Parts: sequence; structure tokens; C-alpha cells
Amino acid sequence: MKNFNISCPISINQYPHVLLAHGGGGKLMQQLIEKMFLTAFSNPNQVQHDAATLSIPTDKIAFTTDSYVVQPLFFPGGDIGSLAINGTVNDLAMAGAKPLYLSVGFILEEGLPMDTLWRVVQSMQKAAEIAGVKIVTGDTKVVDKGKGDGIFINTAGVGIIEHNQVISPVSVQPNDVVLLSGDLGRHGIAIMALREGLEFESTIESDCAPLADLILNLLDNDIEIHCLRDLTRGGLASALNEIATAAKVNIHIKENTIPVNENVQGACEILGFDPLYVANEGRFIVILPESFATKALEIMGENACQIGQVMATNSGLVTMESAIGATRIIDLLSGQQLPRIC
Amino acid sequence: MKNFNISCPISINQYPHVLLAHGGGGKLMQQLIEKMFLTAFSNPNQVQHDAATLSIPTDKIAFTTDSYVVQPLFFPGGDIGSLAINGTVNDLAMAGAKPLYLSVGFILEEGLPMDTLWRVVQSMQKAAEIAGVKIVTGDTKVVDKGKGDGIFINTAGVGIIEHNQVISPVSVQPNDVVLLSGDLGRHGIAIMALREGLEFESTIESDCAPLADLILNLLDNDIEIHCLRDLTRGGLASALNEIATAAKVNIHIKENTIPVNENVQGACEILGFDPLYVANEGRFIVILPESFATKALEIMGENACQIGQVMATNSGLVTMESAIGATRIIDLLSGQQLPRIC
Repeated sequence: MKNFNISCPISINQYPHVLLAHGGGGKLMQQLIEKMFLTAFSNPNQVQHDAATLSIPTDKIAFTTDSYVVQPLFFPGGDIGSLAINGTVNDLAMAGAKPLYLSVGFILEEGLPMDTLWRVVQSMQKAAEIAGVKIVTGDTKVVDKGKGDGIFINTAGVGIIEHNQVISPVSVQPNDVVLLSGDLGRHGIAIMALREGLEFESTIESDCAPLADLILNLLDNDIEIHCLRDLTRGGLASALNEIATAAKVNIHIKENTIPVNENVQGACEILGFDPLYVANEGRFIVILPESFATKALEIMGENACQIGQVMATNSGLVTMESAIGATRIIDLLSGQQLPRIC
Repeated sequence: MKNFNISCPISINQYPHVLLAHGGGGKLMQQLIEKMFLTAFSNPNQVQHDAATLSIPTDKIAFTTDSYVVQPLFFPGGDIGSLAINGTVNDLAMAGAKPLYLSVGFILEEGLPMDTLWRVVQSMQKAAEIAGVKIVTGDTKVVDKGKGDGIFINTAGVGIIEHNQVISPVSVQPNDVVLLSGDLGRHGIAIMALREGLEFESTIESDCAPLADLILNLLDNDIEIHCLRDLTRGGLASALNEIATAAKVNIHIKENTIPVNENVQGACEILGFDPLYVANEGRFIVILPESFATKALEIMGENACQIGQVMATNSGLVTMESAIGATRIIDLLSGQQLPRIC
């Protein structure tokens, strides 16, 4: 891994803050790209050009994008930089793709401390290295002070698909089971606890993590996968609803099988949130034939669990059996539960 | 082409403005995606999923990204939507790639009129159709009022490379000639004239346009191309400087061969700009062996012209012979000439 115990490569004395000219196409932008972004992201022999040229060893790729506007920029367990890498890596993984290449588009607010940008860039480099992806092309814009919010980042990703499974809601079948990779709500609650000044005995850390290796491991072990979804904005409830609607099935889950950390549960009660709707950045569900469940759970590790099943009705609904045995409909949220958590 | 003489597909009475909840992962976001974005962008049989799965008929692709933060959002000759399509299409074209697929990431400011978003989305759809690219994946974030500026758009693009030329500054050779596709400065001046309230007998329109067909036409006609560059932020001067530095050559141009529209020239004088540095969104240079110049100029059309040559010195400098015969160095700009013109 690159050693980043170095200070900001742009002189903080000379340029303590990002200026409009850092996005203007002139010398300062050139300097920012060369000294900071290429230092952190460059690959050997890379030539600056309008587009990156890439070798693709398959005839099928996955392509995705996400913008990241999280506030605050730094939080327990991650920051906007690691989030921007892992979020897009995970979207590729959810198509069963091996993530290879990312683009990065920065929208910086004039006046952003240069050192803050450098911390975010270092975090992105580290996260990309851990996830095994290369940042191959990028863009920087600077907007006037008061017309942005520090840093917004867009990443787009390209991955290769080397299997022949159709991983999509259309593949979901009655009697398939729903597996969850771990406990819910850490990311959203880590952010909200920070914003609200809540303190716990042990800090709740975001679950922000790359998921591609785990998914590729399932595929390499010939697990038949019908659908995958990471549980970001809108949480488990929204992911299940989107799949149930698209697949025209009823997905039924059991509340007492869904793990939620005690501190997360406590924070949810204080803040009035339902952990089913809270965002995660390192959790996913896999929907697959029951016969593959045991082997899949073994591969997914000790925190994974079976939480529900696809029923033979085409209601498009998600239903949940509560801890006390009653069944209710789990709908999409009408409003906004947690603004700007990703 | 799709018929867009339809009103905004989101009820303006019910939702006159974008709300934070339109980016929250719940019902309103779902509605915005389904009713507006999929109406405009969707392809037959498209399934909403975290990533798009694409067939790639070559083993070499180009991949690029740009964010667009232009103000005002609408200007003579274009808007942020058509700019976001053409800008990224052109970056792919500059790698000699055939643009195929785009991603779109919106960062919307809470309170943005819904109808403004719809106008931009329609413009993107139309521009994509003209450029022959498909919008296959996207993302929407909403930031609090006062933390954005109406609309920011990121597009990333994937194109296929079906030729074996190495189109890059590293291919540039002494004695190569520099061809320019048309007159300079329309885009930047269209924006600045609007901002400054300048009026001319005939409105200066942005040159915003897709360039890929023209580039592919050059390649199909076996023109040997050493380097391509579109003349966006920083204009012709910055593009030439980047190439001269990367290629370790001296590029020498002649001022009286460079076409600038009379109104653009007049506006530049009023505003204190040098058209060499003003941004274009539909102009490019091609650097190639002199023996291919005549045929290339024929293909590029009547507005194209030869403006300079690559010299056999490795200074990394751009020099210009002025109209009166003096030679001066054309450097990168130190500051910011035109903020937020793309």
C-alpha cells in the first residue's frame, strides 16, 4: 500500500483553501491534479487525457454511478471518500460484477480547507486499494462559496461480469429465501448520532465496507444467486420493496431474525427511527433457492442470517411477522427519514 | 425521437419544488425516478437495479467523467442538460471511441422548481438521442436549500475503441500539423454575455455539440490521428499547453489562421478576455502528419483550418506568431478566467 504519511502535496501556506481557479482549467487546476490527485490515484504510465483507455477481458460489463453528499464529511468508521469508493464498488458487486475501474468527479466549494481535501483523497486511495479498484479518470469543478457544501463526490464504476447468472429481481422465484449479511443500521445511526451529539458507551461505527470479494466468493462457490441488493438509502425495507414490486412477489420476513446492535436499537428509539429503514453501507441481502442457503450462510460468515422467504403470491408487498407474532405490511417510506447520509 | 410535448410527469401542483425527500430513498424518490427519469431515459426492458449490465463487443473501452456546474442553467445554444451529454460524449470521442453508454448523477438543491428539472431532463434525452448514446444508470441526491445551486450533473461515459491508433500526446511528432475544427469562444462568451447582460445584433450561441460522428468519420477514412483534444475549460491555449508539455514538443500556431467570430471578438474586448483561453463545447483540435491534413480538413468541413505545427524542439512550450509577425509564448493561465462555464 502507498505510504501516505506525507503532508498535503499542495502548499498549505500558499493555498490554505480551495479557490475558484482550482477548477478553472489553468495553472492551479493543473497543479492540483498533478500534485494531489495523480500522487494519490495514478497508475504507472498513466497519461492525462480526456478519457481513460481500458482493456476489458469479457464481453459483459456492469456500469454504475452514485454521487455522495454526506454530512458531516468525516464520521466514525469512514468519511465521504471511503464511502464514495465503497458505495460504487458495492453497486457493481450487486450485479455480480468484479469491480475494476472507477471515475471520480469532485465538486468542491470555494474556501474548502486544502487539507480537508487531502484527507478525503487519501481515504479514497486507501479504500480503492483495499477494494482492488483503480481510479482511472476524473474531473474537478469548484463552485462559489455558499453554492456547495465542502465536497460532493461522484464516482462511476466499471466492472466485468464473468458468470452467466441473471442476478436481477426478474430471477426471484417463490420459495426463494432471503439472507442478510449482518446487523442493520450502523451507518445511518453513526451519522445521526454525530449530528445529534448522542454519546454511547462504545461509539457506533459505520459499517462502510467493500462487499465485492464476498459476492465473488459466493459466485466462485457456485451458489445460485437470484438477486442481490445492498441496503443503502431507505435500508432493508426499501430494498425489499423494490425487489417485491419488480419481481411481482410477496416477500415475508420475520422481525426476530433480524440482527440489530443494542446501541443502534437504543439510538433508533431515541431518534424515532425504525432500523428497517436506516441506511447501511456494508450490508446486503441475497435472494436464492433454499437449497443453497446453508452453504451461502457459511461463506457469508457468522453474522449472516436467514430473515425471510419469497411467497407464492404476486402482491408486490413486503410483510413482516413481528416479535409478538402479528403480521404487518412494510411499505416504502413516504417522507425523508435521514437526509444526506450518503 | 420521443415526443416531449408533454407536461412535467410529476404533478407541479402537488410538488412544485424538489424536496429533500426526493433524494431520500422512499416513495417520492421512487416516483421521481419512475415518472420522470425512466420516462425520458429508459430503454425497452430496462430493469431498475444498482448497476446496468452492458454488452461490449470489443476488448478496449474508453471511460470518462465530468461534472457540470454551469450558471445560468439555460443559455443561448444549450443548457446544463445538453452540455452534460455533449461534454462527456466529446471526451470519449477525443479518445477515438464510439460513445455508447452514459451514467447520470444529479445533485439537486432543495427548492429547485420541478419544472426546471423536467426541462433539463428533456434536453438531456434529446441530446443523448442526437449523439446516439443511451443513459443506462443514474443516481439522484438532494441537498438542503443553500447547500447547492439548483442542479449539478455528473455524467460518466463508456465508449468502445474499434481502431488501433494510439491517440494520445505520446504519439505527437515533430512536423505534425494542428487542425482546428471551427471558430473559437462561442460557448464561454454566450455564458458571459448572458451573465453580464451584454447584447449584440445577433445573439452569440454556444457551440455546444456532439463531436463523435466527426471523429469516427476521420477514423473510418483512415486518417492517421496522433492526438485529439476538445477545447473546453481553458480553451485552445490550455489544450495546446497540456499536449506540448506531455509530448515534450514545441507547438507553434499562427494568430491570423485562427477564426474568431466578430461578435465573440467584440465581447472578448469588452470583457477583457483572450479568445484563445475561452471555453468551447463543440470545437476540437486534431494533430496529425501533414500528409493527412488536406483530406482531414475536407472531412472536417468548411469551418476547419490548419492553425499550426509541431516543431522539432522539446521545449514543452506553445508559441504564437501574432498578426503583426511577433512571436510570443502562450502560457497556461494562472488564475480563473471564466468561472463555472461548464
